Amino acid sequence: MANFRNTYFFAKGQSYPEFKDMTKDELKSLLGGKGYGLYLMTCELDLRCPAVLNLPTFHSHNLENGNLKASLVEEIRTGLRQMEENTGKKFGDAANPLLVSARSGAKFSMPGMMDTILNIGLNDNIVNTLAVGDKARFWLDSYRRLLQMYGDVVEQIKDEQGEDPFEHCLDSFKKEMNAKNDLELGVDALKELINRYKAIYAKYGNNFPQDPIEQVVHSAEAVFRSWNNDRAVFTRRQEGISDDLGTAVNIQEMVFGNKNERCATGVFFTRDKSTGIKSEDHLDGTVLFQAQGEDVVAGIRNSLPLEALRDHSEQVFRDIYEEMKSTGSRLEKTLKNMQDTEFTIEEKDGTPLLYWLQIRDGKRSAKAESVIAVAMQREGIVTKEQAVLMVNPERFEELLFPQIEPKHRKEAVLMTKGSAASPGAVSGKVVFTQDEALDLAGKGEDVILVTVMTSQEDVRGMKASRGILTSTGTKVSHAAIMATAWGIPAVVGASEILINKKERTFNAGDFTVKCGDVITINGATGEVFQGKVPTTIPTELEESAQQILDWSAEIKAMDVRANAEAAETQPAYNNGARGIGLFRTEHMFLGDRLPYIQAVLFGNDAAASAKALEKIYEFSKDDFKHSMKVMSGHGVTIRLLDAPLHEFFPHGSDLEKEENPMLGHRSVRMAITNPEIPRAQIKAILEAARELRAEGFDPKPEIEVPLVIIPREALEIKKVACEVATEIHAASGSWVPYAFGIMVETPAAALSGKAMVEALSTPVPGFAKEAHPVHGFASFGTNDLTQTTLAISRDDADKFLPHYVEHNFFDRHPFMSIHPMVERLVRTFVEEARSVDPGFETFICGEHGGDVYTIERLHLIGLTGISMSPGKVYRSIIKAAQSQIKSPRK
Amino acid sequence: MANFRNTYFFAKGQSYPEFKDMTKDELKSLLGGKGYGLYLMTCELDLRCPAVLNLPTFHSHNLENGNLKASLVEEIRTGLRQMEENTGKKFGDAANPLLVSARSGAKFSMPGMMDTILNIGLNDNIVNTLAVGDKARFWLDSYRRLLQMYGDVVEQIKDEQGEDPFEHCLDSFKKEMNAKNDLELGVDALKELINRYKAIYAKYGNNFPQDPIEQVVHSAEAVFRSWNNDRAVFTRRQEGISDDLGTAVNIQEMVFGNKNERCATGVFFTRDKSTGIKSEDHLDGTVLFQAQGEDVVAGIRNSLPLEALRDHSEQVFRDIYEEMKSTGSRLEKTLKNMQDTEFTIEEKDGTPLLYWLQIRDGKRSAKAESVIAVAMQREGIVTKEQAVLMVNPERFEELLFPQIEPKHRKEAVLMTKGSAASPGAVSGKVVFTQDEALDLAGKGEDVILVTVMTSQEDVRGMKASRGILTSTGTKVSHAAIMATAWGIPAVVGASEILINKKERTFNAGDFTVKCGDVITINGATGEVFQGKVPTTIPTELEESAQQILDWSAEIKAMDVRANAEAAETQPAYNNGARGIGLFRTEHMFLGDRLPYIQAVLFGNDAAASAKALEKIYEFSKDDFKHSMKVMSGHGVTIRLLDAPLHEFFPHGSDLEKEENPMLGHRSVRMAITNPEIPRAQIKAILEAARELRAEGFDPKPEIEVPLVIIPREALEIKKVACEVATEIHAASGSWVPYAFGIMVETPAAALSGKAMVEALSTPVPGFAKEAHPVHGFASFGTNDLTQTTLAISRDDADKFLPHYVEHNFFDRHPFMSIHPMVERLVRTFVEEARSVDPGFETFICGEHGGDVYTIERLHLIGLTGISMSPGKVYRSIIKAAQSQIKSPRK
Repeated sequence: MANFRNTYFFAKGQSYPEFKDMTKDELKSLLGGKGYGLYLMTCELDLRCPAVLNLPTFHSHNLENGNLKASLVEEIRTGLRQMEENTGKKFGDAANPLLVSARSGAKFSMPGMMDTILNIGLNDNIVNTLAVGDKARFWLDSYRRLLQMYGDVVEQIKDEQGEDPFEHCLDSFKKEMNAKNDLELGVDALKELINRYKAIYAKYGNNFPQDPIEQVVHSAEAVFRSWNNDRAVFTRRQEGISDDLGTAVNIQEMVFGNKNERCATGVFFTRDKSTGIKSEDHLDGTVLFQAQGEDVVAGIRNSLPLEALRDHSEQVFRDIYEEMKSTGSRLEKTLKNMQDTEFTIEEKDGTPLLYWLQIRDGKRSAKAESVIAVAMQREGIVTKEQAVLMVNPERFEELLFPQIEPKHRKEAVLMTKGSAASPGAVSGKVVFTQDEALDLAGKGEDVILVTVMTSQEDVRGMKASRGILTSTGTKVSHAAIMATAWGIPAVVGASEILINKKERTFNAGDFTVKCGDVITINGATGEVFQGKVPTTIPTELEESAQQILDWSAEIKAMDVRANAEAAETQPAYNNGARGIGLFRTEHMFLGDRLPYIQAVLFGNDAAASAKALEKIYEFSKDDFKHSMKVMSGHGVTIRLLDAPLHEFFPHGSDLEKEENPMLGHRSVRMAITNPEIPRAQIKAILEAARELRAEGFDPKPEIEVPLVIIPREALEIKKVACEVATEIHAASGSWVPYAFGIMVETPAAALSGKAMVEALSTPVPGFAKEAHPVHGFASFGTNDLTQTTLAISRDDADKFLPHYVEHNFFDRHPFMSIHPMVERLVRTFVEEARSVDPGFETFICGEHGGDVYTIERLHLIGLTGISMSPGKVYRSIIKAAQSQIKSPRK
Repeated sequence: MANFRNTYFFAKGQSYPEFKDMTKDELKSLLGGKGYGLYLMTCELDLRCPAVLNLPTFHSHNLENGNLKASLVEEIRTGLRQMEENTGKKFGDAANPLLVSARSGAKFSMPGMMDTILNIGLNDNIVNTLAVGDKARFWLDSYRRLLQMYGDVVEQIKDEQGEDPFEHCLDSFKKEMNAKNDLELGVDALKELINRYKAIYAKYGNNFPQDPIEQVVHSAEAVFRSWNNDRAVFTRRQEGISDDLGTAVNIQEMVFGNKNERCATGVFFTRDKSTGIKSEDHLDGTVLFQAQGEDVVAGIRNSLPLEALRDHSEQVFRDIYEEMKSTGSRLEKTLKNMQDTEFTIEEKDGTPLLYWLQIRDGKRSAKAESVIAVAMQREGIVTKEQAVLMVNPERFEELLFPQIEPKHRKEAVLMTKGSAASPGAVSGKVVFTQDEALDLAGKGEDVILVTVMTSQEDVRGMKASRGILTSTGTKVSHAAIMATAWGIPAVVGASEILINKKERTFNAGDFTVKCGDVITINGATGEVFQGKVPTTIPTELEESAQQILDWSAEIKAMDVRANAEAAETQPAYNNGARGIGLFRTEHMFLGDRLPYIQAVLFGNDAAASAKALEKIYEFSKDDFKHSMKVMSGHGVTIRLLDAPLHEFFPHGSDLEKEENPMLGHRSVRMAITNPEIPRAQIKAILEAARELRAEGFDPKPEIEVPLVIIPREALEIKKVACEVATEIHAASGSWVPYAFGIMVETPAAALSGKAMVEALSTPVPGFAKEAHPVHGFASFGTNDLTQTTLAISRDDADKFLPHYVEHNFFDRHPFMSIHPMVERLVRTFVEEARSVDPGFETFICGEHGGDVYTIERLHLIGLTGISMSPGKVYRSIIKAAQSQIKSPRK
């Protein structure tokens, strides 16, 4: 860290030439996100900000037994002297005291996860001096807060029950004083409270330092230490933030929005966070006069929209509104993103002045993401690549989930919030048990299952419910994982909810909800509303969203196909899929068509079997023809029959189910022992293509052999394909071009890249060149590949996999995001296959194909294309584009 | 091939200085095994052999449309002129014709697989000239044979049914002539037969060349082509012989043991092939006076033991006996192996002379293998390493299978022979169907199932039988594979057997056997005997066998352990196992002990569960203690509970069996969700070791965690081990040293070598150094690893795996010999693990650990040790030694 200073002082007139050579990312790594924003505003944009002494992130890892090094303490003293000079205030001076806050600020924002101490610099002497007249309450309350925060955060004082004694003391004191809230505590009461707080320090053997420097140093230490508190560590795990980054500490001059009625505090978003719209006469945000930031959060008074400034009777506030607007534009141009800012207006020498306390990239609605990104591109602020990177691919899909429209959202009564676990908004009657859920749902009612947590024993009730709400758990808990898998909206970890099983009610704050009452949950936001809130399902993408998709489709390096059968092909095409990566043929044998496959597999009547095969050929051909017509010009990968035998057992059959059907007689194994079935399927594929070509379409059939473990299996089926192609040629005079490939879903196949590619390109003796496939391909079936690599059957994983996931045995759920060892197998196959044939086409068609983490990994490996369920095509196109932007393929 | 001549001529006085620089192996590759033997005898040892023109093996691949190149034909003419000079005979000369044979001779002997043509050089003119007087029949019969062999082998004449018309013609002609065998055909009859043979040539548009050179050239071409006939290709697949080797052709001067009564032909083994003994006054072999080699095979007259020479009235034959004996010793010293020779005695100028026609390493009984190897080492002919290489590890085990003693073998009536498919000799009543087998076996009878072939539907009947005999199939057919797996003696492919299902009889040649008749089969030799032949089960190894084992144990680089539980530990130790590589703990929970594990897994009563755990701890400790005591000083790997949950379901339980239990909630997964069970097991292991140490033993417990996929799982259980070790120390004051490792049986684990080794060596925080394992290890569970890598459940493979194996989808049966991709995973793990810790110990404990192919592969990979069922310890020790001899580890 020799290149970096131990502290950075940001105030008007300061400059750091060495920062010119550093990227924004490097600066954020050094100063933390908050520190970087303050540097930028103060030193680069010349905005009015409270002075800041930034202790960079690397100190997080350089504490000595949790304490700052002596040399750093010395630099802090120097820095504070600089701040005194700059502000004209003086640390510890009872006449004009400099007060500061010590705030955490990591590279990536983790709101509320680490600690902050305000009002540092107060002591008995200052408070005794200043707490007179109409300012008395302000100073006493500030001191009271400092004592409480310092005792809690720095001294970590706990009572015998391990709880915060200050909070207890305040609660019981308010009761004693008959005060509903803090504001009702008068000057004398606050003095008494301060004494009681001091008694707590004494009781637990701690002390509150009267020396302001000592306060600063210990506060900074406490904030650094908070990098490793449980909440912060947990959040980092959840968000994939590295432990190595560390947090910076920002020692920031306090400004006061609560000095008088011409002071204020508030937040301002540079664009509307709900709609994404940037409007000349409407700024998104709120302002609260004569208040401090804390008061906004506490909700003591209702804050006002920023129009309160625009329409203010005094010109000076109207000017501040304009200043805000123009500054917003400057910030966006510099930071290339919509900003969420905190500000304070403090009166100085009779003039209210706007201070910027903090900026960060603003959170916004799913809808606003695309609107803002596209608008910024059109305004010339970002390139289209940068615009695409501004969109979260997973949230993009929320645009088509059931939603609560803003107008209804405004009227709705929010009861509480939890984690957004599975998107979609839904209303229903509250039930508390599986039996209630099954009972009510059985009567046709929409129900929402409310419970502390779910387990495997609740799955039937969960599936019967329209939505799930739990008071505990996280996004990787059973409820969240299952709900996501089933597409059921869910909110989890809504910790304010207290369930009373006896009464069959729950409380959330002041709300009480009974079994059978209607509530509405929004799984995309985590919100829980009282009663029924109207929801709407958008039918098509808005213009900005479509623009993002179009750009993404243009940028991405990988083909994006869909896993679709006949009925899903058109919807998949509409969503942007170009080609089918997995046409599963087993589904077409269920229902009315089941008897035909049964006649072939289990019948004893050769004539009936032949007739059934003819029928199979016919309906298969119709289905294939439809899909290849819709996807004309694009590849359609049709997988030969893959299902385990027992799925076709006649009803009441005494045939014995296999011990481990997943590893049994299915897929290519059945094709080899029952070659008449792949023959009928291949004939249907090639004849469908032949007919389409005759009709002027451009079908691109790709025959796929599932569950291959050795090249010979593929060769056996390729021979059948050559035979069928030759027969069709003999009958029609036409050769039908087709591709022929394997599904790589076993470790054995994944480890045989060279041999497989060689087998796919080896001619079958005795056939014309034209009878052969035009090229080979491989598609990774990562569902089965994960199951075999990890020896985990998804059907049987309920008893242990939730335990594994909840206890972080895996970095990511292996059936959602590709497991490192499965990824290794995929990479090994691709590398070895390409060493034989550099242009060899590789795809993925497992569930992982629609997972954003996996998509990026596959882009890096160099896959030709990805395929996923039609509902995940949007995210996949965007993520493929983002991967290409971040790591362009050569 | 520029370095090699196109032909080599071997006759007295010839020498090839260039051969001095070549190894025996290289010479065999060039000349073929037969050619090499003839070179050696003729040119190096100066023995009397018929002259030979050798066309080396590389010509196999250099034919032009199946024909010899013109330049080679020219060299053959030159070579034959050399042979004429050397023998004084002349090709095509009616007065003194040179006759030759054209014999195949590949590097590795494949008796009967390729073609041979005798008596080349005869034509109408010669036969008409010579076939007079008492020689008439000889010349006519020789000519008849040439016509037949040439028509069959060279011209490949087939009748409309695709069968050999000469054979048919001979059969019907014998009937016509009322002749029982060929010898009864007189001169006139033979003349007629020759005419009929010529008519066959004419009918099928072929001709028999009168030019002897043409005969030679086409015969050589046919022999070269026979390298690629179906039988030869199949045999090479079976024996693992490379297609690239090719065969040589040996054009050898004919000598005649059938000229008169002072001529003879026969075979001579340099040691007794049954007992292995080399005796001064007994040579093993047979002689047939006035006969040719073919006649010995045809069994026209009974051949005599070689004592007929020793005790002959004429001194000259007694001298030949002595010549044979001394030559045998010379051959053995040169070839460093016991030799199987063919000889002919031909009278020349009134003196019978001994000609050596061929030598090769002699086949011998399992028992003789060790006897010969050890004796040769003691005689100074071979080193102990060479002696060990002379023993077939798999046949070695036959020494302890039920056997037919030589004295009983001599008296027994051999009905027919098939392939030796599963060793052991057994007698029983013949049955033809599964129902008969079940019925009779149910009554306590020993039965032998005789059938054309077996399929999965016969398994119950097969299992009920003491032996299996099939008329079709090979060593990789269903019957052979299943019988080997179950340890049931089997003979397959006994093609002389004709089953009459209606009559419930079978014929084998002249024998007829009815259902219920007793037969005896020897699965080690393929022999089928009439009636009951007494069998014996040897109880201990003979001295030579023990010597081989002792040398092997001394030479081998890998540890050899056994898979054994308490009861098998002593037998395993007796067989030579040092250590246990897999102590399966699930078996100890069956039977009487089942209720205890059920109480823990499924009970609701905490007290009962605790009591059951205590009981589990106690009986486990007793079992572990016994095994560690027997194996004192050697590692005992105890695998924690591994079985799928449903194996412990209470009788009549309504608990649902898993969909794919092999990939379900078992092994370490159950250990993690039910940690009380591994805790009790680990406590039993460590406490057993502690008690043994107190008693003065040297127990080496190794705790093994099954089915690990990620390091975290191992860490969770290691923590339990540290806890238990600490508790034992607290209670007893003693620390118990133990090793701790994982079973690698999933691709995920196999691909995580580095991470696994790192996890095993990472200390668990909060425990003393002594509480930790002394070292880590990994053991490959190749059964499950094969199942997951290939996605094949062995339980469900019956419907397709036999098809795959019979049609050579695999080079080797993947559940018998390690599959290449499984081997790749093993190698990857070992390499990556050793990159972290060069001394990291790796073992195998799957069934493959006792497979000789696999053992050699694992030796090359560098495994620390192998473990197998106690019955396979012998072969494994020997194979491990052989692997080390062939590829010494540094």
